Amino acid sequence: MAAKIGILGTGMVGRTIGSKLAELGYQVTIGTRDPETTLGKKGPEQRGAPTFGDWHGQHQSIRVGSMSEAAMFGEMIFICTSGAATLEALKLAGPTNFRSKTVIDISNPLDFSRGMPPTLLPQFTNTNSLSEEIQKALPDANVVKSLNIVNCEVMVNAKKTGGDPTMFVAGNAPKAKDEVKTILGQFGWTDIIDLGDITGARGLEMVLPIWLRTWQATQNGYFGFKIVR
Amino acid sequence: MAAKIGILGTGMVGRTIGSKLAELGYQVTIGTRDPETTLGKKGPEQRGAPTFGDWHGQHQSIRVGSMSEAAMFGEMIFICTSGAATLEALKLAGPTNFRSKTVIDISNPLDFSRGMPPTLLPQFTNTNSLSEEIQKALPDANVVKSLNIVNCEVMVNAKKTGGDPTMFVAGNAPKAKDEVKTILGQFGWTDIIDLGDITGARGLEMVLPIWLRTWQATQNGYFGFKIVR
Repeated sequence: MAAKIGILGTGMVGRTIGSKLAELGYQVTIGTRDPETTLGKKGPEQRGAPTFGDWHGQHQSIRVGSMSEAAMFGEMIFICTSGAATLEALKLAGPTNFRSKTVIDISNPLDFSRGMPPTLLPQFTNTNSLSEEIQKALPDANVVKSLNIVNCEVMVNAKKTGGDPTMFVAGNAPKAKDEVKTILGQFGWTDIIDLGDITGARGLEMVLPIWLRTWQATQNGYFGFKIVR
Repeated sequence: MAAKIGILGTGMVGRTIGSKLAELGYQVTIGTRDPETTLGKKGPEQRGAPTFGDWHGQHQSIRVGSMSEAAMFGEMIFICTSGAATLEALKLAGPTNFRSKTVIDISNPLDFSRGMPPTLLPQFTNTNSLSEEIQKALPDANVVKSLNIVNCEVMVNAKKTGGDPTMFVAGNAPKAKDEVKTILGQFGWTDIIDLGDITGARGLEMVLPIWLRTWQATQNGYFGFKIVR
């Protein structure tokens, strides 16, 4: 099992996944476009979230590096970038740094250009998915889609929903899915359904519209989907 | 509350909804393109389902008529046609026959032209939905999307999943959604989330890909989605 984990993206998802993995004893490097600028961000940020610099002051065991440093460091890599920026981030990270590694894609191809709530970027929807494009961009890696259907606090603590929701995995390599399932177990997920190959990511990404509407309707982001069966 | 219900579509969904409503004491007319031909279908059919004529022999309290007869008859109307045929069926049924009525749209815009599992018809996906097009085609009706995310036996008996899954409604008219919720209650649904206006149907239709994959993965079609919160 991987002991070193690389995380691409320093938003709330990357931070939450990173700090949970560090707490679990993994070595973590979190990657950003420009580490110096990102770390220099201090003081209050919009919407009440701490800036990265302030957050990192509380999580100093997590190394901060470039996208390629994080990818190179990780024996397993989490993609936590915003969907629209993901493929560009992988170019920066260097596809050869992903060779033979398990890559967990949490990103969602959200399209904010039409207003709120977002729709999905049409080129990644229905007959395609962002995960399939990631797998094409990283042909030597083993991409697994998972975790994208809940908020980041629920991702790392399934029980935060107050119940036992279902999590899904989709990917071409069974061994990589097993590795992801192990981490999911450490995040509190006990009911995991394997949706088959990476095209199963289509369904997972297409859950976002009902996720967003349910959040709106219930005014509660701490929910998960349970397959009752 | 409506006592007379019209159903469009004589496939498994229309039959299952129709027979359950008849059992609940509603008067039901089920509509088809060509009633004489549909009723004349007897003997074994593909995939083990009974032909309509044989089925109707067991459900003689249900009237069979044309699409427009069913629409005219119903104080409330269920759309149970295949998604690709729905808008054409509404033309046959006559939009004026839907005026001021609650219309429950269960249809899914499945596209079988690319092989199995089906994708969604691109013109009804992501930035649009079949329900929105139905609402446009029936501007004087109150369209509510619901029930399309489970198999037809679960639609009329939520407890068949072995648990208490969540059902959703989306539509522009609160009164129509209340009428649908009453019927959902009679079908055993006790956890109902209102996703807001008819654009909420996008999310409900986009659940189909993960529904199909989950069915494939679990080899069990008797499941529902529970919002764990």
